[in-house]
Amino acid sequence: MTTARTLDSTFAALADPTRRAILARLSLGEASVNELAEPFAMSQPAISKHLKVLELAGLISRGRDAQRRPCRIEAAPLAQASGWLDNYRRFWEHSFAQLDDLLEELKAEQAAAKKSTKRRNTKGDKT
Amino acid sequence: MTTARTLDSTFAALADPTRRAILARLSLGEASVNELAEPFAMSQPAISKHLKVLELAGLISRGRDAQRRPCRIEAAPLAQASGWLDNYRRFWEHSFAQLDDLLEELKAEQAAAKKSTKRRNTKGDKT
Repeated sequence: MTTARTLDSTFAALADPTRRAILARLSLGEASVNELAEPFAMSQPAISKHLKVLELAGLISRGRDAQRRPCRIEAAPLAQASGWLDNYRRFWEHSFAQLDDLLEELKAEQAAAKKSTKRRNTKGDKT
Repeated sequence: MTTARTLDSTFAALADPTRRAILARLSLGEASVNELAEPFAMSQPAISKHLKVLELAGLISRGRDAQRRPCRIEAAPLAQASGWLDNYRRFWEHSFAQLDDLLEELKAEQAAAKKSTKRRNTKGDKT
């Protein structure tokens, strides 16, 4: 697969909450279809369909054991997706930095307001 | 939107090469629909459809200028997607480490093979 087609199938596979939950479960260790179906209150065929999408995207592989065929995470496509997103990191880091600046400004304004209120109250005491 | 729904729409929006190319173009600066359509040999309505998907996913925003309505990247959903993928970083870093070990082993084997060939050749010279 080309990089573009890998990214297409990786992002499409990740665009579903059940498939992301399956990957989260598999991040704890290998699991069979039955073990994966259990917590989802989903039929085994429904889970199998999701597993097929993940397998075609190269995000999981299945073991050879004919009975269990345990699923495991394959991380290479996730690394590629993360690498693609990294090209945009400067945008969100920039936004976070702006948010930080804004918070600092607000804090400084609040501190200045407090100080001036205090000064006015002190003056009030004197008169 | 909940985190799960944001991730759904972000990953779905990113699963298309034209939409990723639009974001790449916008990473260089704001652009109008016309400017975006130009390099893609795509009709303006086709580009507008992709922009709608990106806008609904919160990945771009449109300017107020009624004529141009320039598009710009909004990075927050990208940051969230990157954060989700980070949960799996240990898997690909582990794979890369294994690959490194394998390469080191191969290099060591090659060096050993070279050495033994050299020794054999030197012996051959003597006899």
